Amino acid sequence: MATKQSVSRRGFLGGAAASLGYLGINPTPLRAERSRAWRGSAFLEQESDEYDAMAKLNFNENPYGPSEPVLEAMTMAFKYSMRYGYPDGGVLSAIAEHHGVPQENVMLGAGSGEILEVVGLTYLEHGKKVVGVEPSYGAVYRHASGIDAEAITLPLMDDYRQSIPALIDATKKHYRDVGFVYLCNPNNPTGRTVSAAEVQQLLDGIPEDVPVLIDEAYHHFVEDPEYATSIPHVLEGRPVIVTRTFSKLFGMAAMRLGFAIATPEIIEKMRPYSTGSINALVKWGAVAALQDTEAQERVRRVTLELRKQTAAELESMGYGVIPSETNFFMMHTGRHVREVQQDFRARGVRVGRAFPPMLNHLRVSIGTEDEMRRFMVAFKDIFPARTTAGSTRG
Amino acid sequence: MATKQSVSRRGFLGGAAASLGYLGINPTPLRAERSRAWRGSAFLEQESDEYDAMAKLNFNENPYGPSEPVLEAMTMAFKYSMRYGYPDGGVLSAIAEHHGVPQENVMLGAGSGEILEVVGLTYLEHGKKVVGVEPSYGAVYRHASGIDAEAITLPLMDDYRQSIPALIDATKKHYRDVGFVYLCNPNNPTGRTVSAAEVQQLLDGIPEDVPVLIDEAYHHFVEDPEYATSIPHVLEGRPVIVTRTFSKLFGMAAMRLGFAIATPEIIEKMRPYSTGSINALVKWGAVAALQDTEAQERVRRVTLELRKQTAAELESMGYGVIPSETNFFMMHTGRHVREVQQDFRARGVRVGRAFPPMLNHLRVSIGTEDEMRRFMVAFKDIFPARTTAGSTRG
Repeated sequence: MATKQSVSRRGFLGGAAASLGYLGINPTPLRAERSRAWRGSAFLEQESDEYDAMAKLNFNENPYGPSEPVLEAMTMAFKYSMRYGYPDGGVLSAIAEHHGVPQENVMLGAGSGEILEVVGLTYLEHGKKVVGVEPSYGAVYRHASGIDAEAITLPLMDDYRQSIPALIDATKKHYRDVGFVYLCNPNNPTGRTVSAAEVQQLLDGIPEDVPVLIDEAYHHFVEDPEYATSIPHVLEGRPVIVTRTFSKLFGMAAMRLGFAIATPEIIEKMRPYSTGSINALVKWGAVAALQDTEAQERVRRVTLELRKQTAAELESMGYGVIPSETNFFMMHTGRHVREVQQDFRARGVRVGRAFPPMLNHLRVSIGTEDEMRRFMVAFKDIFPARTTAGSTRG
Repeated sequence: MATKQSVSRRGFLGGAAASLGYLGINPTPLRAERSRAWRGSAFLEQESDEYDAMAKLNFNENPYGPSEPVLEAMTMAFKYSMRYGYPDGGVLSAIAEHHGVPQENVMLGAGSGEILEVVGLTYLEHGKKVVGVEPSYGAVYRHASGIDAEAITLPLMDDYRQSIPALIDATKKHYRDVGFVYLCNPNNPTGRTVSAAEVQQLLDGIPEDVPVLIDEAYHHFVEDPEYATSIPHVLEGRPVIVTRTFSKLFGMAAMRLGFAIATPEIIEKMRPYSTGSINALVKWGAVAALQDTEAQERVRRVTLELRKQTAAELESMGYGVIPSETNFFMMHTGRHVREVQQDFRARGVRVGRAFPPMLNHLRVSIGTEDEMRRFMVAFKDIFPARTTAGSTRG
């Protein structure tokens, strides 16, 4: 089919074998050697084999991994692995330039997850509160409660979008206690966007000194013309913190690099809470990744094609899929997600966890074409076709 | 000479060329290719060439880098670089087992630097104070002031050792305001140890609920029989937090992994302040590194040999060297370190920065045999031989 052909034609690099192949190393002897040398390796091999075999549609990962030039750059950087003050490829300026902002507007983190925590540590002192919707990227709320702060979470609207008027009302109502507002755009786990006009409405509607953390982890997958990045609001001098990551489109989740774009004042305020502890390899990899626009376009295209194709097939079986602008989608199954997860797992497919209160919905990440095929086979085995689409509210 | 022979005999792996050679990649074509493809690469090449050529004796790095099995394990782990919930080699249990403690006593950090910050964030709320000596690893005090806490720093004794009675007195005097006591053992930048008996004296002498952060980054280089790790005090249930790192003996500073060993209560209290954001490669590398005892012994032996040899040569020229138990030493030059740094830099050698108030002392990290030779050539060029050793107090 078309997707597969276009991927093959471009010599797409993906998965373990390809990564090692690129380095001129045959994975099989490597693993055999490891089995002999390593204590406890028999167990690890087993675990790894089971892991490798699963269709992994549970963590919104990019299944293709770093592109060839990125792997090359990271491999080169092994030569700095024992160093502190090494040349870092100019990663900070590369990120700043790429986004059209001065360097003083950028702070790196070990994944955007670190940045989200740093915002919490900076703005939730003395039990302040974060305002946002639920479900969303829950790590923000969990972190808040871990540091004795609190989350004010609002329900989604009936179409699973975030209600800007409700966010404004809650922020105004709790103004004295609000540390910041959290907006994941597009939202995880629903995949829905907040439009540029709505972001403007939010910023204009809340007291102007309330920081707004806008998590754009899935930015690169958006097609919705009403959506726009919030970086321009930073350059206007608003207390907006935009976060981005190299974990999604760039396929480097386990290498750990993300960043914040915010005003220099906010960056300086946050800096003492940041570790600044980022490995040498991902710094060089990130510089290469920003330049590899062909790989970006390839991942984006194949991911969106597979998402649309899978969603269409599910809809044709009578299952409602929430319109997504990301590398995952959410669908109503009518059964508790924990049972559904087990049914899929028994068929070699990992799917998303429960996202309360949407317990009868399932989040499915877009894997490779083969993984999506395996998902559909399992789905048809687990769920009967419906004649008409059921309610999509869980 | 003996050092060189023993290193060669064991096929010691060191430096950029060796790392890339191990991967079957010739560094020269790789770099040439990078120059063509990368924006701004001409400048980066230049910077990298100058960096590569310098004798780097300024950051207490292990110049040999990760051993061959460690590079192999890290290279294998590239296959997880796009993942979140991947097999991690059992790194937490490997570290726990290696140190004879349960897993619940261990917390990983992106370098022990992250752990030091986490201790600050956990115990210096509401402007509490950290008590320690100066000079020591200053990042702890800088972080404290960054989060509006404060450091109570005490001078070293005349022999550059840390005064336990003074630490006890200061802790008792400021008891209500003390967040924790910081003890770097052996101390950076002096290289001197605190004996096991002195640690016991400190723990018995301060109020028993005061946490003590014991930074054992240089633990593996100690020969002093009076010294011992403080991990047993953790197992006694004391509020002691021991930190260790894979940056020194294991040569993985830029890969970023360190850890804390503390009571489960303390680990749980610290966890919300930790990012838990560690890259996949260093997790696998660490497991391999703990098992590669031969590489550990090799690095330790050659480093200590070179340190002793260099110190003896300096002493024979009439320059006093502070007795060190680490992979660096400090010496009295009688000139301000900033000038001395420039003189060395002009000769292609980077040496340690200023450590106030010891401004007429110089910290020198132990590099390769070649780097130490270049250091001595530069030293003889910059400093005259003295007939008698001068004062060693700066």
